[in-house]
Amino acid sequence: MEEKEFEELEALLEQNKFTVLHSLLKEMNPVDIADFLGSIDEKYLVVTFRILPKDISADVFSYMDSDSQENIVRSITDSELHRLVEDMYIDDTVDFLEDVPANVVTRVLKATDPKTRETINRFLNYAEDTAGSIMTTEMVQLHTHLNASEAIEQIRKTGIDKETIYTCYCIDEKRHLVGILDLKDLLLCEPNTKLTDIMDDDKQIISVTTHDDQETVADLARKYDLLSVPVTDSENRLVGIITIDDIVDIIEEENTEDFEKMALLSPSDDTYLKTGVFKMSKNRIIWLVILMISATLTAQIISKKEMLLADFAFLISAMPMLMGTGGNAGSQVSTLIIRGLALGELKIRDYFRIVFKEIRVALCCATVLAVLNFLRLMIVGGGDYLQYFVVSAAMFLTVLIANVIGCTLPILARLVKLDPALMAGPLLSTIVDAATLSIYFAIAQFVLMR
Amino acid sequence: MEEKEFEELEALLEQNKFTVLHSLLKEMNPVDIADFLGSIDEKYLVVTFRILPKDISADVFSYMDSDSQENIVRSITDSELHRLVEDMYIDDTVDFLEDVPANVVTRVLKATDPKTRETINRFLNYAEDTAGSIMTTEMVQLHTHLNASEAIEQIRKTGIDKETIYTCYCIDEKRHLVGILDLKDLLLCEPNTKLTDIMDDDKQIISVTTHDDQETVADLARKYDLLSVPVTDSENRLVGIITIDDIVDIIEEENTEDFEKMALLSPSDDTYLKTGVFKMSKNRIIWLVILMISATLTAQIISKKEMLLADFAFLISAMPMLMGTGGNAGSQVSTLIIRGLALGELKIRDYFRIVFKEIRVALCCATVLAVLNFLRLMIVGGGDYLQYFVVSAAMFLTVLIANVIGCTLPILARLVKLDPALMAGPLLSTIVDAATLSIYFAIAQFVLMR
Repeated sequence: MEEKEFEELEALLEQNKFTVLHSLLKEMNPVDIADFLGSIDEKYLVVTFRILPKDISADVFSYMDSDSQENIVRSITDSELHRLVEDMYIDDTVDFLEDVPANVVTRVLKATDPKTRETINRFLNYAEDTAGSIMTTEMVQLHTHLNASEAIEQIRKTGIDKETIYTCYCIDEKRHLVGILDLKDLLLCEPNTKLTDIMDDDKQIISVTTHDDQETVADLARKYDLLSVPVTDSENRLVGIITIDDIVDIIEEENTEDFEKMALLSPSDDTYLKTGVFKMSKNRIIWLVILMISATLTAQIISKKEMLLADFAFLISAMPMLMGTGGNAGSQVSTLIIRGLALGELKIRDYFRIVFKEIRVALCCATVLAVLNFLRLMIVGGGDYLQYFVVSAAMFLTVLIANVIGCTLPILARLVKLDPALMAGPLLSTIVDAATLSIYFAIAQFVLMR
Repeated sequence: MEEKEFEELEALLEQNKFTVLHSLLKEMNPVDIADFLGSIDEKYLVVTFRILPKDISADVFSYMDSDSQENIVRSITDSELHRLVEDMYIDDTVDFLEDVPANVVTRVLKATDPKTRETINRFLNYAEDTAGSIMTTEMVQLHTHLNASEAIEQIRKTGIDKETIYTCYCIDEKRHLVGILDLKDLLLCEPNTKLTDIMDDDKQIISVTTHDDQETVADLARKYDLLSVPVTDSENRLVGIITIDDIVDIIEEENTEDFEKMALLSPSDDTYLKTGVFKMSKNRIIWLVILMISATLTAQIISKKEMLLADFAFLISAMPMLMGTGGNAGSQVSTLIIRGLALGELKIRDYFRIVFKEIRVALCCATVLAVLNFLRLMIVGGGDYLQYFVVSAAMFLTVLIANVIGCTLPILARLVKLDPALMAGPLLSTIVDAATLSIYFAIAQFVLMR
């Protein structure tokens, strides 16, 4: 939806043309309505929410940002709140409750049925980012003694409340998950086929437990092209499912986390514009300080060579270029390795193949860079050929070392169960800088001060 | 599946125990079978593929890597190839054909029915990464004059060949896309309900055209929680759909591309271990050279200040630390902005709000860093208090400037239709380095050389 359309809709609000607005909203997608509600003046929020068609208001509410959700909950009556929560899927309710103040949570729980309340409370107790905390209980459960037409009949009767009916879960009397069934197979087989004949069973069941990390859920769904992943408790009893729309969100969340870690930012759940200045500063300052203090190392390396630098002032001017190239080459390598590890394309056991490949790639890149650098220095001038040679030789070795460090650090991190994403640009550059300067001064001393 | 299980399966192959192997493979997930086929000795590949249950071999083939696919196609008979291609979904066939040599493509096309061949040829002509190149034609199309039970009957008859039956597309006599229908609604309504009464129509239809970028497809599916996205031609006729499993792959592909661009790597479609050394070097060398040459700027800045640096050698030792901190602060900001733009959370029009926030965040971070840096220098020693002050003041201004540059560059890139991901760590550091050194030397000259 375009901003212009939103403005037209808001104009209707200002003119109190609620009937026209109602009929326009009825035609809109709930996601767009939620966007619209997030864009309008706060004073119109509750009145607009109230004129939404009843069958979509819970859906719209699920898509709204948490500030607007909170505003609405504070303004509607207990009975409106009761109906809203009963109409929402459990996983959306839990999502919403995780982001609002405790007094709002209390009010929502008070307004719900005891059974719903119990479920919500159980969900809120699962650790953040576990399968339990993101699952929903609205799945289709079929007993194994049914046949296909009985199963379809049951889905027809109860399906309206389910978050998905496209993957059905077969359970025995003790609610153990014993089979998985696509609605497609159910619909396309003979009506009197037994479920046990068409369901995937035993080894083919792909499931997670409530305590598994959400990343595991996303990896399984991506690898096996699943529309939903079943969640079981420690005794293999089916307790919930995670649907593909939430899995897509998890994938983006995990990617965002990797992007943030690679820039050494503490992960943040809020969007950029919603995060406060102090929280944002806090997310950034720790690593900035750590890296600044680590740079003491490079300063020490330099201060020991002050005599050398005073004699050959030209060498100073090449320092940033050398450190920059080393950092850039290292970042390229570590990014590839971090991504390969995250997508499961690379494993720890591939390390030696990786290093061997990186050394060969480095030899190619380093040769090109060293030659071009020598030519560049000849054109720009400022020193003599022996000094240009020193800089170019250091460049060659820097790229070589940067590539080896760049592929080693992420794999080392995985080995000691740290997130490889931490070993990206910034941290790597600090380490490569020290190596670069040591090599540079060693070569300079050897060549120039004999 | 564990590596150990694969080894057990391969042992069966070596012992020619094909019947046992067949019965074990029958129980496995096609994705795992494809993994297994990728792990075994090449000489067993075709024989193992041939003993697969017929109903899953096309599925397994779709999940295999392109080298193994090529090996199999080269070894099987024309009639086997014919059946294989007819059993595969069009989008999987196109994926496979895009990665193999021309002579294999010719052989596959020869072995297929004229109608399939025509479709494949049309798909191969769509530009890479467009909706047309990734869609499939196996969707459920329902004419609007049907009622619910007639529609279900049609799905029962034709559904077996469709990639998904869970979202159905309603068309008029001219094949125009006029409505979208969830199977759920179809199944749960009264049997004699008209499709036009339950389908989403008009404004609610979310679709793309064949020439739209795959990123658009992924964004829509993510935003609206779609299980599949319909693709139309320029006259709004339905020509295909893109299903959620492919959309998940697109999301990961687009993320990988962003990761690569942020490290200034030319994007590569192959996995790390499959990319050759020269291709990999080529992907990296261009930006390394460009950045190395750009560093001439910093070298020039330094060489003009050689006198200053010769007099105050301590200043040299702080250079890497200042440039490092500037680069790190800038990377943190640009990562947040790049990700915000990619997920649609930030827009160009938010620029002034972003800059205002970044300045405030920078003031917090810069103050902490400058104070800690002063203390650090007091402890480490090497210069006098006036010099420490120069370094700390330069640190303060560097962080401030780095934050402003870090949020400006990605938005500027978006404004001129470049990918904001290019404006990450490496490119940013090179620009921030020059600014940092200029500030540093200006302050040093002003304070120390009066």
